[in-house]
Amino acid sequence: MSLMLSEIEQQPTAIEKTIKRESKKIERFAARLRANRPRLIVLVARGSSDNAALFGRYLLETTTGIPVSLAAPAVHTLYKAKLDLRESLVVGVSQSGEGVDINLTLENAKRCGATTLAITNEAESSMAKLCDEAFLIHAGRERSVAATKTYTGQLLIFHLLARALSGGKEELERLPEFAAEALKLKPDVAAMVERYAFMEQCVVVGRGLNYANAYEFAIKLMETCYVVAERFSGADFLHGPIAMVDSGFPVFVFAPPGPTLKGMKELLTKLHGIGAETLAISGDASTLKAASRGIKMPRVDELLSPIPYVIPAQLFAALLAEAKGLSPDQPRSLSKVTKTV
Amino acid sequence: MSLMLSEIEQQPTAIEKTIKRESKKIERFAARLRANRPRLIVLVARGSSDNAALFGRYLLETTTGIPVSLAAPAVHTLYKAKLDLRESLVVGVSQSGEGVDINLTLENAKRCGATTLAITNEAESSMAKLCDEAFLIHAGRERSVAATKTYTGQLLIFHLLARALSGGKEELERLPEFAAEALKLKPDVAAMVERYAFMEQCVVVGRGLNYANAYEFAIKLMETCYVVAERFSGADFLHGPIAMVDSGFPVFVFAPPGPTLKGMKELLTKLHGIGAETLAISGDASTLKAASRGIKMPRVDELLSPIPYVIPAQLFAALLAEAKGLSPDQPRSLSKVTKTV
Repeated sequence: MSLMLSEIEQQPTAIEKTIKRESKKIERFAARLRANRPRLIVLVARGSSDNAALFGRYLLETTTGIPVSLAAPAVHTLYKAKLDLRESLVVGVSQSGEGVDINLTLENAKRCGATTLAITNEAESSMAKLCDEAFLIHAGRERSVAATKTYTGQLLIFHLLARALSGGKEELERLPEFAAEALKLKPDVAAMVERYAFMEQCVVVGRGLNYANAYEFAIKLMETCYVVAERFSGADFLHGPIAMVDSGFPVFVFAPPGPTLKGMKELLTKLHGIGAETLAISGDASTLKAASRGIKMPRVDELLSPIPYVIPAQLFAALLAEAKGLSPDQPRSLSKVTKTV
Repeated sequence: MSLMLSEIEQQPTAIEKTIKRESKKIERFAARLRANRPRLIVLVARGSSDNAALFGRYLLETTTGIPVSLAAPAVHTLYKAKLDLRESLVVGVSQSGEGVDINLTLENAKRCGATTLAITNEAESSMAKLCDEAFLIHAGRERSVAATKTYTGQLLIFHLLARALSGGKEELERLPEFAAEALKLKPDVAAMVERYAFMEQCVVVGRGLNYANAYEFAIKLMETCYVVAERFSGADFLHGPIAMVDSGFPVFVFAPPGPTLKGMKELLTKLHGIGAETLAISGDASTLKAASRGIKMPRVDELLSPIPYVIPAQLFAALLAEAKGLSPDQPRSLSKVTKTV
């Protein structure tokens, strides 16, 4: 079994441990922020961590009402801009905590007046040390180059922070159980990937809280299966890119319950009209029927859906890599820590 | 000749007219903003207009120091969030001014306390009417579905706004001349596209002020040539997606002078090592040498480069569509105004 697959299976345990170990610290930090509410939250990350930040953006804006921006690191590292970041919270997200551009951005943000927070696996990393506060993902070391348990760990930290900031009542404590249920889909997914062994390109679509999962599924397909996988929000896809879809073109769609479902179902119907081959990841029976194929998800509220919904996508990428005879743990041209400026 | 090609050629005139007609209005608006400086600028758009907004983000942050966020319309339209947008400027960008989700987002932003601004071709559009102020692109009606002159018109408005807000001395009045020079590349590009007639997938890379052009080139290739064109910043590309690149894989790289050049040259060298087939759009001789092929750009400062640099990319897409026997003016599955919520 690949390291990637075994790390995918460690997720319920990692989530449980992180909730147990970090909740109190996050609640204390959020209490201080509530007393001194930031005007803006800026998220800084690259790769899968940046996908997690994209989730954080939707979650924090919708639950706390504080505007959120995804940083453009080049503004800080290459253009050396001085932004007015007073009364802002700037959050770095990095598995290793050693992303050079992320850390330079955080340092510049501090000089620009921001409070800084690190979300990382490594308590002793440069990022954890330079930030005013650090929240840790207790997932154990991630040995596969393809991030899985650290991605869901990062989603979880955003969940905990958003709940603490908004005073919400989300049952995050059930996430290990939802993740475990999603893992039971492994035999279904294994039976499915054979069909895609020679797929060279595809599109992944998500929206709202699951938009990040479209990015994450696509990056997994790119790095472990060498598939040219585009990613779009359901709306952006209709503004141009859909023209490239013709008969038989594979499109993967995240369609959880909630306010994004109607649009996703309409998109599936439109894609059916074009003759595209769709695969829906959904808990909704009629949406699954509108797709060529489906992965039936257990029942879960939209707010809690991103962690369980990404799991079949992770399994899909890991199993497809195997079906193609590739090792998902050592993608060509990549190393675990990418140092860009 | 396609409408797209003729509209590409109208760009110097459209830019000149827009500078002449809008500069004073933009300067007056900027003077008011300087007296009452926004804490945050939020840009709201879809499709090519969203690519222009991505440019606006880099330009406004680096020249004014005001943090900029690209809005997630679903937060407003589907999740109906109440964001704290007091002391914020929210800018809608839309060719038609009739994007339903853009307008709903602007309406919600108003309720949330923001000042609103429209950037559009249509003075009588819903967007122009609902916003506190409107800046117009004087490009004449755009009849091709693929946006070209309205995209550069939007870049220009961001240039004018950034210069007025920052008190900069950029010679924007030379942009019509730079655009006209870039148009002279047409025969070179025409001779080049034949090679790509059967290209099915590619990657486009840009960074900083030209990152938006990578998105714009990719969307043009997707909608007019049906090529599965991925787009990345130079740094993000190295965080995973580069694994999908093998020998012969086509990668297009924007490499203007300035702080992004060094990284782009390193990327070209890395891609050469993998055996990828690169095409650089650059004014720098040694960068052009590092690529498999090149489009040699006239000399221009980085700050003024995005408008002239996108022109060979627009020409490439329009001419490649013709070489493939497709009409770039009427892509399948699309109409000029896309109404998503």
